[in-house]
Amino acid sequence: MEALDKRIAQQGDLVRSLKSSNADKTKIAEEVAALKTLKAEREALVPKEAATTTPASASTSKSEDKKGKSAFTLKNAKGTKDYTPQEMAVREKIFSTIVQVFKKHGGITIDTPVFELKEILSGKYGEDSKLIYDLEDQGGEKCSLRYDLTVPFARFLAMNGKEYQNVKRYHIAKVYRRDQPAMTKGRMREFYQCDFDIAGTYDPMIPDSECLRILTECLTALDLGDFTIKMNHRKILDGIFEVCGVPEDKIRTISSAVDKLDKLPWADVRKEMTEEKGLDPQAADLIGEYVQLKGGEELLERLYNDAKLGANARAKEGLDDMKVLFRYLNVLNVTRHTSFDLSLARGLDYYTGLIYEAVLEGSAPPTLANGEKARATVKKGTDELDESTVGVGSVAAGGRYDNLVGMFSGLNKKGQPNLVIPCVGVSIGVERVFSILMQKQKKEQIKSNEVEVYVVGLGGVSVEERMKICTELWDAGIKAEFAYKLKPRTQNQWDVCDRDMIPFAVIVGGDEIEKGLVKIKDMRTKDESQKGGLEYPRSEMIAELQKRLAEL
Amino acid sequence: MEALDKRIAQQGDLVRSLKSSNADKTKIAEEVAALKTLKAEREALVPKEAATTTPASASTSKSEDKKGKSAFTLKNAKGTKDYTPQEMAVREKIFSTIVQVFKKHGGITIDTPVFELKEILSGKYGEDSKLIYDLEDQGGEKCSLRYDLTVPFARFLAMNGKEYQNVKRYHIAKVYRRDQPAMTKGRMREFYQCDFDIAGTYDPMIPDSECLRILTECLTALDLGDFTIKMNHRKILDGIFEVCGVPEDKIRTISSAVDKLDKLPWADVRKEMTEEKGLDPQAADLIGEYVQLKGGEELLERLYNDAKLGANARAKEGLDDMKVLFRYLNVLNVTRHTSFDLSLARGLDYYTGLIYEAVLEGSAPPTLANGEKARATVKKGTDELDESTVGVGSVAAGGRYDNLVGMFSGLNKKGQPNLVIPCVGVSIGVERVFSILMQKQKKEQIKSNEVEVYVVGLGGVSVEERMKICTELWDAGIKAEFAYKLKPRTQNQWDVCDRDMIPFAVIVGGDEIEKGLVKIKDMRTKDESQKGGLEYPRSEMIAELQKRLAEL
Repeated sequence: MEALDKRIAQQGDLVRSLKSSNADKTKIAEEVAALKTLKAEREALVPKEAATTTPASASTSKSEDKKGKSAFTLKNAKGTKDYTPQEMAVREKIFSTIVQVFKKHGGITIDTPVFELKEILSGKYGEDSKLIYDLEDQGGEKCSLRYDLTVPFARFLAMNGKEYQNVKRYHIAKVYRRDQPAMTKGRMREFYQCDFDIAGTYDPMIPDSECLRILTECLTALDLGDFTIKMNHRKILDGIFEVCGVPEDKIRTISSAVDKLDKLPWADVRKEMTEEKGLDPQAADLIGEYVQLKGGEELLERLYNDAKLGANARAKEGLDDMKVLFRYLNVLNVTRHTSFDLSLARGLDYYTGLIYEAVLEGSAPPTLANGEKARATVKKGTDELDESTVGVGSVAAGGRYDNLVGMFSGLNKKGQPNLVIPCVGVSIGVERVFSILMQKQKKEQIKSNEVEVYVVGLGGVSVEERMKICTELWDAGIKAEFAYKLKPRTQNQWDVCDRDMIPFAVIVGGDEIEKGLVKIKDMRTKDESQKGGLEYPRSEMIAELQKRLAEL
Repeated sequence: MEALDKRIAQQGDLVRSLKSSNADKTKIAEEVAALKTLKAEREALVPKEAATTTPASASTSKSEDKKGKSAFTLKNAKGTKDYTPQEMAVREKIFSTIVQVFKKHGGITIDTPVFELKEILSGKYGEDSKLIYDLEDQGGEKCSLRYDLTVPFARFLAMNGKEYQNVKRYHIAKVYRRDQPAMTKGRMREFYQCDFDIAGTYDPMIPDSECLRILTECLTALDLGDFTIKMNHRKILDGIFEVCGVPEDKIRTISSAVDKLDKLPWADVRKEMTEEKGLDPQAADLIGEYVQLKGGEELLERLYNDAKLGANARAKEGLDDMKVLFRYLNVLNVTRHTSFDLSLARGLDYYTGLIYEAVLEGSAPPTLANGEKARATVKKGTDELDESTVGVGSVAAGGRYDNLVGMFSGLNKKGQPNLVIPCVGVSIGVERVFSILMQKQKKEQIKSNEVEVYVVGLGGVSVEERMKICTELWDAGIKAEFAYKLKPRTQNQWDVCDRDMIPFAVIVGGDEIEKGLVKIKDMRTKDESQKGGLEYPRSEMIAELQKRLAEL
């Protein structure tokens, strides 16, 4: 392993010197790949824990063990994490808040499987398709883990279109992307999405505007501070590309480059367009003038009046949609949260109309001294992102996708889809919301269990007696626990009540059992008058507790 | 295909005439099976949609398309299904019922990822390991989809053992098995498990008995009819194998054979032991005498008094556990649901003590004319199971696994695990419960959305007016919808109210808007007195609706 470490150090030096001398990019990429291979080899030899901060005792012996008999890595798969009870309490609060909004707008829910036939996902995600997880071919069908909830929903509609011509469905479930994780910012390989989509043929922009209203209600209810919903329209973007002279077959790839404007300065995006993607520099400069525009309704007038864009048929359709949209957004009281932003492009292939993305104020990547946004960088000597350079990014996004269902329905003799169900939807990236809300809370103050009564046994009371009382409580629907010991120590029982913030204790000793009594103690007060609890006949225990619990 | 249709019609007639003439049951079963095979053949020729109720136009062209240009298969991956809004309503009801019981017993919840490092799952599932789904090696770690929720929980405890020495955790999530599906019986490749596990070092059988109480409460609350929890003990089984002369290295594989006794007759299991697994036939016969025993507490005495078994140290430990268990089960009022059944073995490697499995009365596989249970058979000409030959099987199972956490914690110098956390748990197979409950319900009667108010616009009312009223309702927390059309037809709006069982309509026409009025109509009554709805000043709309909704 020492030899390996030496080779890694040497290879690292090589990569750094190539980079600082601005060497040929392909050469650099090759050497970086070689470095990664070496690191992977080393990783296979060492347990992850040794590198992270698990307690020394456990991790040392674990790593010893590894050198010894079992070469076992005790960790989560990369980019995935466990959720502790406290984290689950926060996550479930987020879900219930969002579901409440979804239901308020008539949402019903549908569930689809975690994996789909591979061909269902093909050709839907543009350059991001490389991030799809495939299942191993173990005989049978080729399958992939879902990348989002939208494509499976469209597949569902194509299969069941007759019954679901009009549907507002929400779906809260995990999706999978082989992306570079930034765990503390909620950027993970397994993460939840909360989607709301409206499917059906309706008059323009009515469901679209309701999606923006739903998004606004969700972000407001989640209490995340101020936010901006950037909006743009695929047809306006396409019109811009047309009037700037982008060839039709380059439109999607140039659009992907524009989409990076929230992370990269214009100069870098221009470079990608011209050097990597071979766009005429003049066309790029023209695009640059448009895509750096943003504003509100007034921007619409300016674009209508733009000599070139105003005359472009595609752009005109988009502008007309935006005009109607602004009217509805005013009625729905959400205009103040929106920004008409021509730099927004969204990477996915399937959008056909309005697109949008919500960004929280104060969660953008850090700003550098020169006023530019910091770029996400990789930590020295690792292939991990330096998370201090990463912003939380958008917390929600969505748009209109009128042709996706048709892509699954097959074509008729005229070459048209057999089934067209236009859709518009929004997806809330709940892990990012989660990472923000967790930072606000003190872990110790999150109550993760709901126990109402702890049955405390004092000297000489058998486990059967405590079990019997619990059985009575459970039969009455009261949440109750007792110690799983034959002779539990009294102090340990009080400690559990305190640790789990259990409001009431039922206390029994040998005396009480004989007399048919129990004591009930309110654990939340230090009230001296109740001392060891107030006495009640055993037959009144349930009624008394129910009365007290109702008052909580 | 026409020829096939004719044969199906003829076969159908034959089955009906046999049934009406009260023919021999085996004969009827044979002919029903033949009919099903014919239907399956026809189904294979026609796309799914055509066989159900989708419009002929769509499905025909889809099948044309399939033969034509795109070889696209529009379907779910094998063994997986979508859940419709009605099904989701039933599923969520099941979950909330179970979670309520889990919380009553102090459960907290933890979530783990859908995939784990492959090596985490290795060597935990005995002969069933072949059913594990692997992710394709796309560079990086080798991962597999989780097979159950127990192994990931043990991995979590091994990683976080310091903080979670004692925990009652529940986890409701999907697991994955490449098994032969029987969809209508709830046997699928992607399915939910609802797990409750108690981790920690306690006095014997106290948490074990509470798990059985929890299981009893869940099955009772789900209202599934009568059920039996079969119980056995790994140490008793091991003792039996020892006294019957099974070599130590054959114990697990012989145990797997015993586990099939609920699906196969003893003769077949014996054959597997002797012919496939090379066990001495005399040993097999001895085993046969023991594993066909079942009963209650009295069986315990019989086994204690058994000359061979009573003298076996391992068996003795198991019998002592069972004796304590029966005492607690009596206190917990669950004895009447249990059966001490020596044929229960459970296939998984990791159990170390008490094991159990719950079976519903009346959901066993069909019984043949000769009194034997039917065996699951494969449909002729396919690799699909004939579901009419499959029982729903066990709806829940579990047991004690004291060494699983230690398997992840690595060994110390003395060769002992670094961390030991004994666990006992139960897993409810909610898909099977779901398939039973769905059969009981009429799909049309399941309400899948929660909309409280529909805003109906009559002649000349703009969409903005309806949108504005909805905005007011949403702001007040009322669940409301309106038609996404500029000029919706009146009848269509009433139809939505009826279809979705929406209790109230707010009705506005041009007149009402001018006068600052709305009409509110109770859609559930045909009460003539309210006619087109009762008039209210617009300013009182919210208060009136809130009053009426509170009375629902």
